Amino acid sequence: MVAEGLPDTVASRAAGLPAGITIWEVGPRDGLQNEKSVVDVDVKLEFISRLADAGLTTIEATSFVHPEWVPQLADASDLLAGMTRRDGVRYPVLVPNERGLDRALEAGVGHIAIFASATESFARKNLNRTLDSQFEMFEPVVTRARAEGLEVRGYLSMCFGDQWEGPVPRSQVVAAGRRLLDMGCSQLSLGDTIGVATPGLVEALIADFGSPDQLAVHFHDTYGQALSNTLAALQCGVSTVDSSAGGLGGCPYAESATGNLATEDLVWMLDGLGVSHGVDLTKLVETSAWMADQLGRPSPSRVVQALRG
Amino acid sequence: MVAEGLPDTVASRAAGLPAGITIWEVGPRDGLQNEKSVVDVDVKLEFISRLADAGLTTIEATSFVHPEWVPQLADASDLLAGMTRRDGVRYPVLVPNERGLDRALEAGVGHIAIFASATESFARKNLNRTLDSQFEMFEPVVTRARAEGLEVRGYLSMCFGDQWEGPVPRSQVVAAGRRLLDMGCSQLSLGDTIGVATPGLVEALIADFGSPDQLAVHFHDTYGQALSNTLAALQCGVSTVDSSAGGLGGCPYAESATGNLATEDLVWMLDGLGVSHGVDLTKLVETSAWMADQLGRPSPSRVVQALRG
Repeated sequence: MVAEGLPDTVASRAAGLPAGITIWEVGPRDGLQNEKSVVDVDVKLEFISRLADAGLTTIEATSFVHPEWVPQLADASDLLAGMTRRDGVRYPVLVPNERGLDRALEAGVGHIAIFASATESFARKNLNRTLDSQFEMFEPVVTRARAEGLEVRGYLSMCFGDQWEGPVPRSQVVAAGRRLLDMGCSQLSLGDTIGVATPGLVEALIADFGSPDQLAVHFHDTYGQALSNTLAALQCGVSTVDSSAGGLGGCPYAESATGNLATEDLVWMLDGLGVSHGVDLTKLVETSAWMADQLGRPSPSRVVQALRG
Repeated sequence: MVAEGLPDTVASRAAGLPAGITIWEVGPRDGLQNEKSVVDVDVKLEFISRLADAGLTTIEATSFVHPEWVPQLADASDLLAGMTRRDGVRYPVLVPNERGLDRALEAGVGHIAIFASATESFARKNLNRTLDSQFEMFEPVVTRARAEGLEVRGYLSMCFGDQWEGPVPRSQVVAAGRRLLDMGCSQLSLGDTIGVATPGLVEALIADFGSPDQLAVHFHDTYGQALSNTLAALQCGVSTVDSSAGGLGGCPYAESATGNLATEDLVWMLDGLGVSHGVDLTKLVETSAWMADQLGRPSPSRVVQALRG
């Protein structure tokens, strides 16, 4: 387990884990979208800037969903106009449809993400579409985005369970995921929107996809399982993990979906595992503590609580 | 990954995991010992009784440490006198020295646990002994307890890090642990007292012991790592896991030691993994919600929060 010559206080990277991973920071979008009181665009801009200072290289900045759905992100165009883009940092933006893509293109976005559902119930609740017809909505978005030179990520919600349908057949998840990849998404993020997954299911679903190469994982900590599910995904070779600074976030249309995996708790584990990620934990904790002050309540991240509590 | 014939919403037990484990419930002792206001002995008795109702078969009931050290557990003799012992349930009790063993024997205890430190600093802080001389204190306790027909567990604190010494060499942990096993402990519980461990270190330490058979793990969730560390230990074949109902607890002499792994969060993962444990999650959550009411603050367990929040 431990490489020859290392001091025996240090464990070498466990067998099978990636040497390094990309942390896909969703705090400014998934983390904030559920906040009731609207956060000032300057605070959001400082949040994004501080996340980049902390070493995050993929920061999901905002969303072009209709402002009536997510009032918190109604300032998407202003935010992108005010945002300083740094070399080596990607700022993907959520786009629900062709109108959203128009706005993203106007704003000079280089990377978008679409969001589909693995279940019929959530496709109807979240998108007002059937499971099948959601793909008809996304197909022209992806095709045009690719033609414009944009990178496209596909989110897939409710991959491990759905509060209306219960357990979701893995074959259904794989079929929906493949449609997103086949239409031109370069990455597929498997979302445990209501936080019910456990490591064996994570392994089984990734195995059913055949390869971890285009997969990312997106866990919510509703039942305390987010980090162990992430460990299971890393053990399967997944090398992009979604997380939210300070554990901010949830899903406005799924009642029991509480916070995302906290980026700090993920970084703590990766540091111990010797998996590189590029994030300065001290700066990140300072950022989340600052953001918690802005929001007026403590961060749910255990690491933030332990180091700043 | 999935057994032939199972519906594809269910993952079979992942390779290498034990078929079933013993949950060593530490709520009434480790969970409560750090509570500032003394909990009434009748509340403790009801807590223990409800834990047994929920299916827990090992419930660490109390401690015979000196009442000045842990005033919360000064009622140990009264508690044991009032406690109804059920068939098939063990009620181990913490014993620090020969005086404590005398009291345990008077109370008719059948299973004790001693608690040693893997580091010099914590041996001095917690036991007022050197790393070496703590074993001289424990040896006659274990010898006499075994002669009296008692089962003895050895706890080892600070196995993954120590707030005064930093990382702890694994060779030092293994040496201390072996002394406890060699003197007659039938089980060794590896404690991450300050919650700093990560899964690679857990694997490496268990590997250094040569076999998981006599090992248990005891993780604190200070940095959010308790459940992923537990997953790593299960993957190494460990089949006894310490946890605390509702995530109660901490360590009074280690400042940054916050709550134990919550039994509910562990049970959620085990259910998903198909690892049997005998606990009724609904009854356990009710018990922790009731105990949280007694203590006047919410449970830190994510599962309790999600199901009762």
